[in-house]
Amino acid sequence: MKSSFQRIRIGFIGTIIILLTFLLVTSCTKEIEQKAKFGLVIHGGAGSIERGKISPEIEKEYEAKLTEALETGYKILSDGGTSLDAVETVINILEDSPLFNAGKGAVFTHNGLNELDASIMDGSTLNAGAVARLTRIKNPITLARGVMEKSEHVMMVGDGAEQFGVENGFELVDPLYFYTEKSWEALQRALKKEEELKSKDQAALLDIAPGDKHGTVGAAALDMHGNLAAGTSTGGMSNKKYGRAGDVPVIGAGTYAKNVTCAVSCTGHGEYFIRLGVAKDISDMMEYKMISLDEAANEVIHQKLEELGGTGGLIGIDKYGNITMPFNTSGMFRGYILEKGKANVSMYKD
Amino acid sequence: MKSSFQRIRIGFIGTIIILLTFLLVTSCTKEIEQKAKFGLVIHGGAGSIERGKISPEIEKEYEAKLTEALETGYKILSDGGTSLDAVETVINILEDSPLFNAGKGAVFTHNGLNELDASIMDGSTLNAGAVARLTRIKNPITLARGVMEKSEHVMMVGDGAEQFGVENGFELVDPLYFYTEKSWEALQRALKKEEELKSKDQAALLDIAPGDKHGTVGAAALDMHGNLAAGTSTGGMSNKKYGRAGDVPVIGAGTYAKNVTCAVSCTGHGEYFIRLGVAKDISDMMEYKMISLDEAANEVIHQKLEELGGTGGLIGIDKYGNITMPFNTSGMFRGYILEKGKANVSMYKD
Repeated sequence: MKSSFQRIRIGFIGTIIILLTFLLVTSCTKEIEQKAKFGLVIHGGAGSIERGKISPEIEKEYEAKLTEALETGYKILSDGGTSLDAVETVINILEDSPLFNAGKGAVFTHNGLNELDASIMDGSTLNAGAVARLTRIKNPITLARGVMEKSEHVMMVGDGAEQFGVENGFELVDPLYFYTEKSWEALQRALKKEEELKSKDQAALLDIAPGDKHGTVGAAALDMHGNLAAGTSTGGMSNKKYGRAGDVPVIGAGTYAKNVTCAVSCTGHGEYFIRLGVAKDISDMMEYKMISLDEAANEVIHQKLEELGGTGGLIGIDKYGNITMPFNTSGMFRGYILEKGKANVSMYKD
Repeated sequence: MKSSFQRIRIGFIGTIIILLTFLLVTSCTKEIEQKAKFGLVIHGGAGSIERGKISPEIEKEYEAKLTEALETGYKILSDGGTSLDAVETVINILEDSPLFNAGKGAVFTHNGLNELDASIMDGSTLNAGAVARLTRIKNPITLARGVMEKSEHVMMVGDGAEQFGVENGFELVDPLYFYTEKSWEALQRALKKEEELKSKDQAALLDIAPGDKHGTVGAAALDMHGNLAAGTSTGGMSNKKYGRAGDVPVIGAGTYAKNVTCAVSCTGHGEYFIRLGVAKDISDMMEYKMISLDEAANEVIHQKLEELGGTGGLIGIDKYGNITMPFNTSGMFRGYILEKGKANVSMYKD
């Protein structure tokens, strides 16, 4: 027979266990409640974006455009729209602005052309669409979505992709639409520098006007139906040659979305993002190593990318509405908006 | 004080533990000893390759060409050559043969052209090279290697890639080089069928002459320095339109290599391989889930790919020289050669 002291002790321990279990369950429930039922995160490129180097007027322009994009995406998501619609619409807004290296503001190739790449992915079906080397499509992300939804293919390149566009109701714009003084001057600076460096090695060419290389735009969204989507659009690298394509049209590198894990869009020195398969790597680490979006994203940007010597950043959202926005450059145009509807925009590291 | 019975029991258990440990260590050592120090695995495409449908003469041609490729690769590896050299040389042999849908034997696009894609990856550095929509390069895998080794880029597309080739000593061949009666007739059959099906849905078009869609070639190798490499080369899909690119130029989808895991080359319905990021998915499952190459490869081909409705196969080799060659089609031209130097070639399921 147990003594009454023993009985009291067992009763006391039992109470403590019940209390702890209750606290644990409550805190877990609270955590789930705190997650957004929908959310949107965007970027407008990572690069040498430093405080003091951008005038207050230009700063305001970036803030206003990113806020407009976030609020437009929020309207779609809060009205019950799909993550795919939010991603496409938000990227359209950034493509139509001359501020970013995508659509209207695309940089020039070595030959004085604008060659645009884009990709989009639907996390609920793993359907995807990618286009590369477009010269006459105003909104590449919309053509990428057309490839995903209106063809049996995932990737279309060059004039063939544009022919598909025309057959599916896309209007071809005059290539001059993509002319901006800023991009043209960046090319002229690069060409001049290239002339000066002709005797030096190829690697040095990559360091020409590093600020001009960035400005890719992207978005990742979770809708209230639990579906994730991501998209990315870019004008590539200023002064690029040889039909170079970066990570943007490479599904798994610049863009990936999978409902059980996350939606991710990348920006930066594309070659490194292809070699690491960055966007899918994050999804795989979450799925196979069971780590969080933020842990996975930080490991890729601050360890794997840095070990290879690459620069850039990414944005991502998981199925609970957790977001991440790591980068290893001095800045990244970025922002997010969650269920409460407050747009958060930033560009510098601090 | 312990009784003598207890002492005997402890002694007995101790002996058993020591014996088991010894057996475990011995079997592990044996397993490592049994692994090849170098090895090569290749494919010549997966598809409807059925016993009885291929004449004994043609069977012999395939067997002879695959054996020639394996033995040439073996020579390189056993002489201490690199996995990259073995992969490139082996794929060159398959590209130069009209038997496969790559290089010389490439299928025709809808417009009567041959558009070739290829990619290669060095597992020791994660360097990679990819080319897409080539029309005048005899050996696309060699240009992909040129992009990897002689440029700062990973991916080049179309005429730009060819311009890079010319500037780096590649000869442009007359596009007629790629004409083969077999590929031309396959296109004519496809066009005729397409005409008949014009009123039917797009999806039906994909089922035209399914045998003609396949024949991509690829290789994965481990050299005696412990370095892995993989490469893939293809003429794409017969009767393809719109500048369609499949998984071959998409690093992470059709090709991936990483020294700590494996080297993989894929073949099949490329769109599904892009959406699943097949080659890197296998590497990631090995790295993050700690499963074997064979388990990972079978999970992708027999579960993930089938769930999406895709068909195809892949070949892979890991850092110990273990190989895998799963496919979910009726056959896949394939073969491997390990340290002992015996070429093993097969094409059917059984």
